[in-house]
Amino acid sequence: MAQSIRVELGDRSYEVRVGRGVLEDVGSFVAAAAPTHRAVVISDAAVATLYGPRTAASLTRAGIDATLLPFAAGEHRKNLVTCSEIFDGLFRLDPAVDRRTVVVALGGGVTGDLAGFVAATTMRGLRWVQCPTTLLADVDASVGGKTGVDHATGKNLIGAFHQPSGVLIDVELLASLPEGEFCGGLSECVKHGIIRDASLLDFIEGHVREILSRDPQVMEAFVARNVAIKAAVVSGDERESAEREHLNFGHTVAHAIEAALGYENISHGAAVSLGIVAECELAADRGLLERGAASRVRSILRDLHLPVTLEGLDPEAIWRSMQYDKKNRGGRVRMILPVALGEVATFDDITPDCVRTAVGALAE
Amino acid sequence: MAQSIRVELGDRSYEVRVGRGVLEDVGSFVAAAAPTHRAVVISDAAVATLYGPRTAASLTRAGIDATLLPFAAGEHRKNLVTCSEIFDGLFRLDPAVDRRTVVVALGGGVTGDLAGFVAATTMRGLRWVQCPTTLLADVDASVGGKTGVDHATGKNLIGAFHQPSGVLIDVELLASLPEGEFCGGLSECVKHGIIRDASLLDFIEGHVREILSRDPQVMEAFVARNVAIKAAVVSGDERESAEREHLNFGHTVAHAIEAALGYENISHGAAVSLGIVAECELAADRGLLERGAASRVRSILRDLHLPVTLEGLDPEAIWRSMQYDKKNRGGRVRMILPVALGEVATFDDITPDCVRTAVGALAE
Repeated sequence: MAQSIRVELGDRSYEVRVGRGVLEDVGSFVAAAAPTHRAVVISDAAVATLYGPRTAASLTRAGIDATLLPFAAGEHRKNLVTCSEIFDGLFRLDPAVDRRTVVVALGGGVTGDLAGFVAATTMRGLRWVQCPTTLLADVDASVGGKTGVDHATGKNLIGAFHQPSGVLIDVELLASLPEGEFCGGLSECVKHGIIRDASLLDFIEGHVREILSRDPQVMEAFVARNVAIKAAVVSGDERESAEREHLNFGHTVAHAIEAALGYENISHGAAVSLGIVAECELAADRGLLERGAASRVRSILRDLHLPVTLEGLDPEAIWRSMQYDKKNRGGRVRMILPVALGEVATFDDITPDCVRTAVGALAE
Repeated sequence: MAQSIRVELGDRSYEVRVGRGVLEDVGSFVAAAAPTHRAVVISDAAVATLYGPRTAASLTRAGIDATLLPFAAGEHRKNLVTCSEIFDGLFRLDPAVDRRTVVVALGGGVTGDLAGFVAATTMRGLRWVQCPTTLLADVDASVGGKTGVDHATGKNLIGAFHQPSGVLIDVELLASLPEGEFCGGLSECVKHGIIRDASLLDFIEGHVREILSRDPQVMEAFVARNVAIKAAVVSGDERESAEREHLNFGHTVAHAIEAALGYENISHGAAVSLGIVAECELAADRGLLERGAASRVRSILRDLHLPVTLEGLDPEAIWRSMQYDKKNRGGRVRMILPVALGEVATFDDITPDCVRTAVGALAE
């Protein structure tokens, strides 16, 4: 009833277990991954209400003293102020937390980033176990050890690398996810197929209905395949590197779209879907990728109810915004582009004309 | 004009350079230790006024674009609020900081802990170079990579291990240090001799006058010897361990004294001096250490103008406070005690009577 993927990072290696109903066993999972007598479950208030008691009960059954520490959630609350509130709650617990205490992060990407950062910086590093509850967190945030919060001037500017001791993904929790959030995670899945594994795209095409209905059996296989791809990219190389940079495919244009429209006006998943379309288009324009492959990607995204067109986007604004991408070096815009489905490469000879054409294609 | 000690920590190894007037060369030191085009000097306002311009000028001469970022100082300001202020300043710089930016921490222990923590958590880790300006920071905070801030409920509860790329100690800066702060650092030097190197105690006895007058030549040799001892203890083992625990000698009682009197009523250096006296006394009572050795330590501390007696201390309060020491395991009080000058061991069979007698001896 569960699949296991090992993230290889030397003495920081850990297991990602993906299964149906596995949250019932989080206690024994924590006991094996990070032996302890004490766990603090950090969770946003909504998720804490849904799954907190079940998580705490499982920990208790495994002989682990569990405390639930909910916090007020929201993407705009991923900041030092919320961290500070969590620290206040954490350090006022009785009995007091100590260096053997394990943090269990129960929730979506924001919760994982926040709770992971709190774990990274409590007493110079507590062990932590991640229990993601959204598709995006399942396939993206669960691998890589990136933790942190936003600053008013930019996203994820404050943070640390802090690998979890283990990650437990219960795909049955996806049932409670709002439609928009679920589709958002699907963009990253399509991205994984394009950068590393064309057969994942075949899998999606063969299971569109089961994926959209969140069929637990199909989702277990699907999430496990995505985690395996991300784990292979990140393994042996937890900091930014050439290979890890490939995960930014689709995101150069996506970030520019978010910046142009305002983060509150488009979801990250939708922006990534549009970014994938535009960057495949750009690759096709340059003759890197076959036209048919670009069209196929567009169909897959559309089948998954992801946006592939956007009216009124100003290609000039997108190009200007791309000047500020963190990947750029020496003033040149860098982009990850597919050279075939399942394979990408990095390019730094991107012309404004190319970008204008590709972004223009989003209006079609 | 300078001595170099290497802190061996695998791929996080770094050099501590101790010399006279070496702040003039901080630019070339940073260029070698952490090659960059951009440095941000984080410094408390008082130190920034004294040494900021000289530091920035040296960096500029080495081809490094330097920005001075002062913050309002104070031991009670070593918290997340001050961190947040520093982040606000850091992320609003123009041109913007990036992952190649190096943080230079210029100041005492609080500055090193704060600036090191900001470096550890900016974009998931910027390189940093430490330029301590107090004796305590020179001989203690400069080695080990401990960074962090206090929480209202306890000291150093929020933090990270983040090794610097290099440490540059200019002993001439000690000239501007207030008397009390200078003596505070001397307690740690005496501690170093007791736990690892009896010949350091000989050195102190032979140079009391030069040390108290902060003679740069003697201080260079003295600080370098202390750094070498701490580096040997920490090397190969940056997290807490049996050996690193030895650095807590004198501190079990010191922390209890601080807790009993209130942190604002006694300096840490004075508390450590009293802790050393009490713990040597305790070791002598148990027959671990010769009486003569304990008396000799007391004389050395007195010669260095450090307190060796304190009226009105309640031995019962000290014993109660020791129950909460972080080193304790399974409800037993653990202490590091000297078995000879230059050698310590860990004991967990400490009786309340022993402690009462030893602490009582401080009133003599």
